[in-house]
Amino acid sequence: MGGTSLRDVQRQQGETVLDREGAVPLYHQIYLALRDEILCGQRPFGSVMPTEQQLSAQYKVSRITARRVLGDLAEQHYVERRRRLGTRVIFTSPAKPIEANIDQAVDSLMALGEGTSVNVISVEHRAATDIIANALKIEEGADVIRAVRVRCLEGTPIGYIVSYVRGGLAAVISEGTLSNAPLLKLLDEAGFHADRAEQTIGAMLADPSLVDALDVEPLSAILRITRTVYDKNNVPFLRTYAHYRADRFNIRLDLQNPSPA
Amino acid sequence: MGGTSLRDVQRQQGETVLDREGAVPLYHQIYLALRDEILCGQRPFGSVMPTEQQLSAQYKVSRITARRVLGDLAEQHYVERRRRLGTRVIFTSPAKPIEANIDQAVDSLMALGEGTSVNVISVEHRAATDIIANALKIEEGADVIRAVRVRCLEGTPIGYIVSYVRGGLAAVISEGTLSNAPLLKLLDEAGFHADRAEQTIGAMLADPSLVDALDVEPLSAILRITRTVYDKNNVPFLRTYAHYRADRFNIRLDLQNPSPA
Repeated sequence: MGGTSLRDVQRQQGETVLDREGAVPLYHQIYLALRDEILCGQRPFGSVMPTEQQLSAQYKVSRITARRVLGDLAEQHYVERRRRLGTRVIFTSPAKPIEANIDQAVDSLMALGEGTSVNVISVEHRAATDIIANALKIEEGADVIRAVRVRCLEGTPIGYIVSYVRGGLAAVISEGTLSNAPLLKLLDEAGFHADRAEQTIGAMLADPSLVDALDVEPLSAILRITRTVYDKNNVPFLRTYAHYRADRFNIRLDLQNPSPA
Repeated sequence: MGGTSLRDVQRQQGETVLDREGAVPLYHQIYLALRDEILCGQRPFGSVMPTEQQLSAQYKVSRITARRVLGDLAEQHYVERRRRLGTRVIFTSPAKPIEANIDQAVDSLMALGEGTSVNVISVEHRAATDIIANALKIEEGADVIRAVRVRCLEGTPIGYIVSYVRGGLAAVISEGTLSNAPLLKLLDEAGFHADRAEQTIGAMLADPSLVDALDVEPLSAILRITRTVYDKNNVPFLRTYAHYRADRFNIRLDLQNPSPA
């Protein structure tokens, strides 16, 4: 969308934009990005981490920097490094899943949409990174559409939302369509009905890109939701990373007895 | 529990301990505490805020400081100040509640309990503040028991949990009993069966007390859960404030179709 001052940055997908002039060393920025992926369940227990060479190529840093990243993750017991076998995730989140009704959750999202406004920042084709490919069960490098939106409440930006769908949905998900209807509604009309979803809810500090997009102080608290939505054939068709300002948004999750006495 | 280096601090109940030597001005510390209460839904839309006089007495600060706090909240559109009518909350969280099965959520909590260890920091009687009184539907100043626990995963503190129950439960909830069984289990055995709960999930920065209790850097990201648990007669019997290290804990919330196609 033209005229916006919001930077379009690449986050949470192994394409984290590094702040090369910032106070935080590059190795620590990459460390934080990978750690987030482990905590989010994007890199589950037992999964193979990128090699030093892959990290070095992906983030355009030296092998020494890449080695330090993996070394620090090992030191904090997130991964285990073994000669020949490579680096594997050894962290298991202590949180066990709880379940909610997806229709109600979709209603809740739609209500959020009605009570707020959305600026479509960008919609563009990308080659799927390993994480996105894994989430959408497609080949790494396959064509995907990446849509970035900022959700506002009474003019104040409260959410920075990055969504991925398969490249074939370009006619359905565009700047034009997203400006007029919620993403889930567009997908539903195109035959992709949300049957179930996996979600992770966590907290993080606002990095420079979120500071910019959400108009918050550096290091403000951010509530993050990572979500993969599946159709009734268990095919994932949407991967979303939502980041909300903690000073303007929280989640109400009520617990009910399914069989009242 | 003797020998612990963990400070027992009063948080989230309108008794926030102010850091009088810290870099953050007192008025801003109180502002943040009250703002959190509004965002959490502890102070819902339309509810009356404390007066300058009450704030001044409660936090032991000057009337000028108290006035600044309420003025800043008004400026950020969290409250509205009106002569004679006083100060009222005008912020509505854009989040609509979603619902999950309480039995499953309790199972999830129990599983978390089994996978982690708990240090009971303190269990003591208190006079209920307005917020606790309101949550437990008792008189302000009534006797309550306040239990503070730290949950550890493989020796690392991950959660700082403050719970309140009515004073009459002193025989059920004590340092001795809590060291041996989960709080919900103790309450269940005493006839308080969790029938439903209201929860708010948000993010915050670690304040000095959490830095201490959770062994994190200042201003680390914290995932916060506020919970009120009700019995089948809709009587609230437990109010809990849980603070988890975002680098070690997140919430898995899966969404399911209740009527599969």
